[in-house]
Amino acid sequence: MSKIKKINHVAIVVENIEEALVFWRDQLGLPLDQIEDVPAQASKVAFLPVGEGEVELVQPTDLDTGLGKYLEKRGEGMHHLCIEVDDIDGVLADLKAKGVRLIDEIAQELPGRRMAFIHPKAANGVLVELYEIVD
Amino acid sequence: MSKIKKINHVAIVVENIEEALVFWRDQLGLPLDQIEDVPAQASKVAFLPVGEGEVELVQPTDLDTGLGKYLEKRGEGMHHLCIEVDDIDGVLADLKAKGVRLIDEIAQELPGRRMAFIHPKAANGVLVELYEIVD
Repeated sequence: MSKIKKINHVAIVVENIEEALVFWRDQLGLPLDQIEDVPAQASKVAFLPVGEGEVELVQPTDLDTGLGKYLEKRGEGMHHLCIEVDDIDGVLADLKAKGVRLIDEIAQELPGRRMAFIHPKAANGVLVELYEIVD
Repeated sequence: MSKIKKINHVAIVVENIEEALVFWRDQLGLPLDQIEDVPAQASKVAFLPVGEGEVELVQPTDLDTGLGKYLEKRGEGMHHLCIEVDDIDGVLADLKAKGVRLIDEIAQELPGRRMAFIHPKAANGVLVELYEIVD
């Protein structure tokens, strides 16, 4: 089994990042690393480091996407749990061999990371994201 | 502001811990530290370390409790996010002064830790637990 490294982040879907920062940054006191526009995923993301991981606030910028519909249906709250691994190809091959339902059978290549989602039906209702950090 | 240390754990409410371990331990490969009965909270908890934090699988043992009703209403999924701090009394006093809605205004004393919940209405739908680890 490929090595599990850490909880990379917990993503929270919010209506509005600036309003959400009132709690997470100003009241709770998490540092705000940066806010990024992610047009490819029709969202805006705020990164707030906590120990070796992060809380990510994700605001859909288009309500007609998976994330936008999720927000509309379920309201604000935790959206996914991202676990960082050493070898995402190995983990995905292993999960596939074990019959685990995957959203991405092959890792998506993004700047600085490779990622894939496991289907929440396979993981007790939790949308699990896998990350491998690459240089 | 009192120092935020890390994500201590992400708690996932499940119908049945043994069944949930098929994914989290056997398929994903997280190590299982232990399973604990917590009669005071009418639940059974499995602790699975991930880096400096943990995934906790929580099974209500009585459906007529807050957790049991949550499971019945929302189904399995992420239940709360626990952030570990250095000085929980300081954090709670600070949050209270800022008008943040708390479930526990005073930390509950448990073996090895002091804990309190922030109301999800104050935190974008996320039930946030605060921990201070004590010797």
